[in-house]
Amino acid sequence: MVYKYIEIVGTSPTGINEAVNNAFKEASKTVKNIQWGEMGRVTFRLDENQQVEYQVEVRIGFKIERAD
Amino acid sequence: MVYKYIEIVGTSPTGINEAVNNAFKEASKTVKNIQWGEMGRVTFRLDENQQVEYQVEVRIGFKIERAD
Amino acid sequence: MVYKYIEIVGTSPTGINEAVNNAFKEASKTVKNIQWGEMGRVTFRLDENQQVEYQVEVRIGFKIERAD
Amino acid sequence: MVYKYIEIVGTSPTGINEAVNNAFKEASKTVKNIQWGEMGRVTFRLDENQQVEYQVEVRIGFKIERAD
Amino acid sequence: MVYKYIEIVGTSPTGINEAVNNAFKEASKTVKNIQWGEMGRVTFRLDENQQVEYQVEVRIGFKIERAD
Amino acid sequence: MVYKYIEIVGTSPTGINEAVNNAFKEASKTVKNIQWGEMGRVTFRLDENQQVEYQVEVRIGFKIERAD
Amino acid sequence: MVYKYIEIVGTSPTGINEAVNNAFKEASKTVKNIQWGEMGRVTFRLDENQQVEYQVEVRIGFKIERAD
Amino acid sequence: MVYKYIEIVGTSPTGINEAVNNAFKEASKTVKNIQWGEMGRVTFRLDENQQVEYQVEVRIGFKIERAD
Amino acid sequence: MVYKYIEIVGTSPTGINEAVNNAFKEASKTVKNIQWGEMGRVTFRLDENQQVEYQVEVRIGFKIERAD
Amino acid sequence: MVYKYIEIVGTSPTGINEAVNNAFKEASKTVKNIQWGEMGRVTFRLDENQQVEYQVEVRIGFKIERAD
Amino acid sequence: MVYKYIEIVGTSPTGINEAVNNAFKEASKTVKNIQWGEMGRVTFRLDENQQVEYQVEVRIGFKIERAD
Amino acid sequence: MVYKYIEIVGTSPTGINEAVNNAFKEASKTVKNIQWGEMGRVTFRLDENQQVEYQVEVRIGFKIERAD
Repeated sequence: MVYKYIEIVGTSPTGINEAVNNAFKEASKTVKNIQWGEMGRVTFRLDENQQVEYQVEVRIGFKIERAD
Repeated sequence: MVYKYIEIVGTSPTGINEAVNNAFKEASKTVKNIQWGEMGRVTFRLDENQQVEYQVEVRIGFKIERAD
Repeated sequence: MVYKYIEIVGTSPTGINEAVNNAFKEASKTVKNIQWGEMGRVTFRLDENQQVEYQVEVRIGFKIERAD
Repeated sequence: MVYKYIEIVGTSPTGINEAVNNAFKEASKTVKNIQWGEMGRVTFRLDENQQVEYQVEVRIGFKIERAD
Repeated sequence: MVYKYIEIVGTSPTGINEAVNNAFKEASKTVKNIQWGEMGRVTFRLDENQQVEYQVEVRIGFKIERAD
Repeated sequence: MVYKYIEIVGTSPTGINEAVNNAFKEASKTVKNIQWGEMGRVTFRLDENQQVEYQVEVRIGFKIERAD
Repeated sequence: MVYKYIEIVGTSPTGINEAVNNAFKEASKTVKNIQWGEMGRVTFRLDENQQVEYQVEVRIGFKIERAD
Repeated sequence: MVYKYIEIVGTSPTGINEAVNNAFKEASKTVKNIQWGEMGRVTFRLDENQQVEYQVEVRIGFKIERAD
Repeated sequence: MVYKYIEIVGTSPTGINEAVNNAFKEASKTVKNIQWGEMGRVTFRLDENQQVEYQVEVRIGFKIERAD
Repeated sequence: MVYKYIEIVGTSPTGINEAVNNAFKEASKTVKNIQWGEMGRVTFRLDENQQVEYQVEVRIGFKIERAD
Repeated sequence: MVYKYIEIVGTSPTGINEAVNNAFKEASKTVKNIQWGEMGRVTFRLDENQQVEYQVEVRIGFKIERAD
Repeated sequence: MVYKYIEIVGTSPTGINEAVNNAFKEASKTVKNIQWGEMGRVTFRLDENQQVEYQVEVRIGFKIERAD
């Protein structure tokens, strides 16, 4: 069995959980067999109304299907 | 005064806060005098409906009562 | 262009997002031109009702306005 | 679901794999529901014949069965 | 000259060396000019017979051929 | 041979050495065959007279005696 | 908004700045919407004339355009 | 509640404890409500008589009083 | 003797050295007795002409003059 | 008692254990009283037959004999 | 100007300060122009009377005198 | 094949590249078969004219020639 990693940054104006969900939603559009993920750096920006926008790095591991 | 650490991983399908709460709830069943905790690694699994499950490592410090 | 960092710990009985917001709210009382922030250590205390209080370190970067 | 960590150092005069196996063998004598483990620090000692002895830290996570 | 990194997790029931080899074998199916690799996190699972399965992260660097 | 780790925080109003000693004194009440220890995080509190109290994390390794 | 990371090593016989530039030049051939980058490990080789060649890891983040 | 960090290096020809004390003494001249501190890097210089001078980084957290 | 740290991010379109210089130039406008500095994270932005802008974190230590 | 460290990279086409052994074999040619070693970075190269060569950093500590 | 590092572990039954001093005393027997040192890992052993022995890694930098 | 590491700090008033070059120049006076190097900590001093002096740690690996 072999797995591969991709690193995606999900963002959300709502919170950290939502940013994580967005990262997984995006990854599942291009990648199958997602097995697990790990939270990396969490950063914040202020939008024009000085509201916090949450940016969460997620390292996503997926199983590589190989027709050997 | 002396303290001891235990490391617990709380999980929740709702979010990071809930996973942290579950870790403390579990610890308080076997350990008294909990003083503080620190968040370690945060990982994610996808359940069968591709929903994110949150897993949070919490390092919990508690005071050791000793009848010297 | 030059930026400066300050390190603030926001706290909240509600959750991590709220603690982050409190850190930015406090910073904006004394600092202008906040550009971005990064989450540092996340720790927890139990209040007298054994409820979790969330403490989040936020490293906040702001632009230095200089009349050179 | 909640998991707990224990940290064990397995040793072996043969190699790293064997030291890891010894750590799991020891853990399974006192702990059920072992889920996963992670390699920590790997150190070496020389025995009296100047042969290398392998010492491997393994952080072992196991599921806590609770009759709530 | 420019290189690119991919991160692959090789696994094996035999040991760490074999898991590393499986990671390189998989990478070479889709990537040419592999130059070097570096071992990342090493984790373990127990299969249904309580035997250790070795999972090794390998960060693999390869040369990018560009027809400029 | 197999070893196990426990993590203890020793404290003292006198200094770092004394806090380390208190950690070992406490550990030896419940654990035999202590082999070595390693200093982790060192933190400080101010008591009511603004005097520094030293808190030292010590990771203590001990040999597991098993009657196999 | 979602971003993705790729890791590229730029090299140059001139210096660190030039190696960074080469990494970005290469990335922009295959990736659009580059937002930012971060310097990783910096290593050096000696060429046949014992001159230093600079190798700089750059972690490049780019915005993912998705026609949802 | 919100806290702020400042980073001070205390020094002393006597030892690490004294250098820590000097850092707190200095901080308390300009900052109230000091809550806790954490030891950072410990470095040494040799004075003209080849005696060791101890330099200890202390990260000091204090409560911010705000008349909201 | 006691020192204090401030953290400044210098930027420059030219290179890393220049960004470091700008950080020190800015610091010296508000701080005397600068003793040393240490390079932290180095990040990059692309300006509107896709040219790299260098951003360098510098942790600057300065001696505190106290009229005790 | 005083110890000193040297850092050696052992290599082997066979595996990690053998590379570690080669590091110790080499060190013992020039250094006596070797006490312990610790594994550092583990890297890999592919030889001309695309076979993995293992390179293991070992930090070796030895006792300094001094005729005071 | 060029400096070189050596890594020495000083030990003492008395405390950390004394172990540091022993490391510098040893280094100065073989190395001139010692400029500065930095504390690394601090470990402990129990002697036969269960008394703590302090072991402190010190990374010592010295100026290289070259008659170019 | 076996390699050994030495750690050298090169300095220069010009910039980081030059400080790296000076480290390699110095190393090559006493060591043959230099294979590679890696940048460690980068620190700065201000000279008497408040000009930045660059100090760069370089960890240099060289092949050990052994007549076995």
